[in-house]
Amino acid sequence: MNVSRRDWLKGAAALGAAWAGGSPLAASAQQTKPLVIDCHGHYTTEPKAFLAYRQAQIAALRDPAQKPAALKISDDELAESVQPQIDFQRARRTDVTLFSPRAAGMRHHIGPAETSADWSRVSNEIIHRVCMLRPDNFIGVGQLPQSPGVRPDNCIEELERCVKSYGFPAINLNPDPTGGFWRDPPLTDRWYYPLYERMVELDVPAMVHVSASINPNFQGTGAHYLAADTTAFMQFLTSDLFKDFPALRMVIPHGGGAVPYHWGRYRGLAQDMNRPPLDQLLLHNVFFDTCVYHQPGIDLLTKVIPIDNILFASEMIGAVRGIDPSTGHYYDDTKRYIDALSLSTDDRRKVFETNARRVYRLDRTDYFKRRG
Amino acid sequence: MNVSRRDWLKGAAALGAAWAGGSPLAASAQQTKPLVIDCHGHYTTEPKAFLAYRQAQIAALRDPAQKPAALKISDDELAESVQPQIDFQRARRTDVTLFSPRAAGMRHHIGPAETSADWSRVSNEIIHRVCMLRPDNFIGVGQLPQSPGVRPDNCIEELERCVKSYGFPAINLNPDPTGGFWRDPPLTDRWYYPLYERMVELDVPAMVHVSASINPNFQGTGAHYLAADTTAFMQFLTSDLFKDFPALRMVIPHGGGAVPYHWGRYRGLAQDMNRPPLDQLLLHNVFFDTCVYHQPGIDLLTKVIPIDNILFASEMIGAVRGIDPSTGHYYDDTKRYIDALSLSTDDRRKVFETNARRVYRLDRTDYFKRRG
Repeated sequence: MNVSRRDWLKGAAALGAAWAGGSPLAASAQQTKPLVIDCHGHYTTEPKAFLAYRQAQIAALRDPAQKPAALKISDDELAESVQPQIDFQRARRTDVTLFSPRAAGMRHHIGPAETSADWSRVSNEIIHRVCMLRPDNFIGVGQLPQSPGVRPDNCIEELERCVKSYGFPAINLNPDPTGGFWRDPPLTDRWYYPLYERMVELDVPAMVHVSASINPNFQGTGAHYLAADTTAFMQFLTSDLFKDFPALRMVIPHGGGAVPYHWGRYRGLAQDMNRPPLDQLLLHNVFFDTCVYHQPGIDLLTKVIPIDNILFASEMIGAVRGIDPSTGHYYDDTKRYIDALSLSTDDRRKVFETNARRVYRLDRTDYFKRRG
Repeated sequence: MNVSRRDWLKGAAALGAAWAGGSPLAASAQQTKPLVIDCHGHYTTEPKAFLAYRQAQIAALRDPAQKPAALKISDDELAESVQPQIDFQRARRTDVTLFSPRAAGMRHHIGPAETSADWSRVSNEIIHRVCMLRPDNFIGVGQLPQSPGVRPDNCIEELERCVKSYGFPAINLNPDPTGGFWRDPPLTDRWYYPLYERMVELDVPAMVHVSASINPNFQGTGAHYLAADTTAFMQFLTSDLFKDFPALRMVIPHGGGAVPYHWGRYRGLAQDMNRPPLDQLLLHNVFFDTCVYHQPGIDLLTKVIPIDNILFASEMIGAVRGIDPSTGHYYDDTKRYIDALSLSTDDRRKVFETNARRVYRLDRTDYFKRRG
């Protein structure tokens, strides 16, 4: 069959209309095709003015004269800067991205707490503006003003701004604000409890995500990120955090670091430590995204981790930007790997849509309020 | 069919005789059944006197009066202490274990370099004695006297003792002698080059294995170990270490940490960084063991990593000691997972035997010299 591009576009438009429309056929199509929510996206195509602001802010730590003026970026510049994200959404047929400031850009280790506070305010505000400008593509997720050696109580004000003023359904939580030296307490320490109390009251989860590493031992995206994911999981496994906060929810990105690959080890370690089985111990509270950039990894993830604990994500445009010569597709086009699984319709919808809606309570966001 | 224990034992003995014997049938059986070399075992059932020696050594750091007398352990005590290892070898039908001091016991972070030097000498000597007492079960692997902030040149003397005096074919190399704070240079720094030069001259590989973590962020066996494996791999990926030392060989334990699960990420990162493909960049030099404690993990490992780079290992009696209720077998009985794979006879032999013989140059060991 030879289908011209024009016919294909007409067909696609008709299909789109059917999905959006109210006919019985449309209703049935709506039931079978899940919304595709990418729960892990960062603003990695920031305008130059935004990066220049940060550079000046850092320079001002040594030379106060370099303190940046208030950030001025036009709506047009913002819209243009996120267009590559939107183009990828369209090309990959994903619908909406939970969108937070660039993870490697948080750099909580730089400067005193005031530096992180200012940088987080500016970063979250810009994310909010992007989400207002492109409300059909992005739902905001916030950055916290963590700072080495500073009690995370200092993050509560920004958490509240993110949730109450901006309507963000989640925040990113850095398990190592020291940038690869791991000198602050673990995530399960009471150090973090005031923050968790407020998160539970606001009913928002955290994605556990480190920032850049300044430790020469840890390259960022291939070492520090995955090591941190693995480390955070083991902190949870060995603690009573979720006994203390039964409603606290943590999303571990990058497919959970090493965890699913070593699921037998973790089951065995919990058993040796006389901890409850993992499903009771933490699977009501801990979730894994699908940022695993090859089919065998996604196969394993979905085989060993209960489907209710897996949230679709790509982290595009992120750690890996190339095309896999063995497939001809982008490494981070993770939707293809999920599409290739033999999941039931219900399970597929869980991974793409309903797990994220549940974990992030997305129905309260403007995006879902508009959709009804 | 009802087989009595006695008949079963008789049958097993006959089978054993056939494998060991010289009949044509035995020769054919010998050809099809590979030797099973477990490349990752630690002396985790040490006699009390050995542990007491270490306690006294540590106590003497504060109170020199507690300095321990020379260690005295009888051959009988040593033989008895390793019997559980041998029993497991027999029960699991593995043949010989590359056997090194307890990884978590190295604790290079304790005391000055002299403390590590003494502790490594004593530990390696005891491993050597075990190997002399039970030469059909163990081939020794050495511990190095690494010490935070001390150039690894200080390890060359003990390396030479291990290889030349004890006939050990390998050593363990700790990528973080600071015990979880990662304050020393990465494995790819010139800091390590004099050690590597000598390793290459002696033609011995290293297993990259951290010791105990004193950083409360990192639990040992579920976080620090896997994070270190992942970190070391990424150090190799981003460096020219194997250009500088084409004959240097590194075994990454615990199935390579997070690496095989994220093989797509690593292929993509190398590509984005304009590095050569991984097989050219490091697969002549980097190998992964099979200490992955569930079937899906082993399935993935053997699917994505070339078979020539996979070495059988269990790390029994080690990190995970229980029985998996979902299988009824020990989590760390990794031979079962390999047995369950549909590998060709040749590939099975590679994983169980020939890869280890090649990477560790085992044919020069007394064990293989005796076997011919």
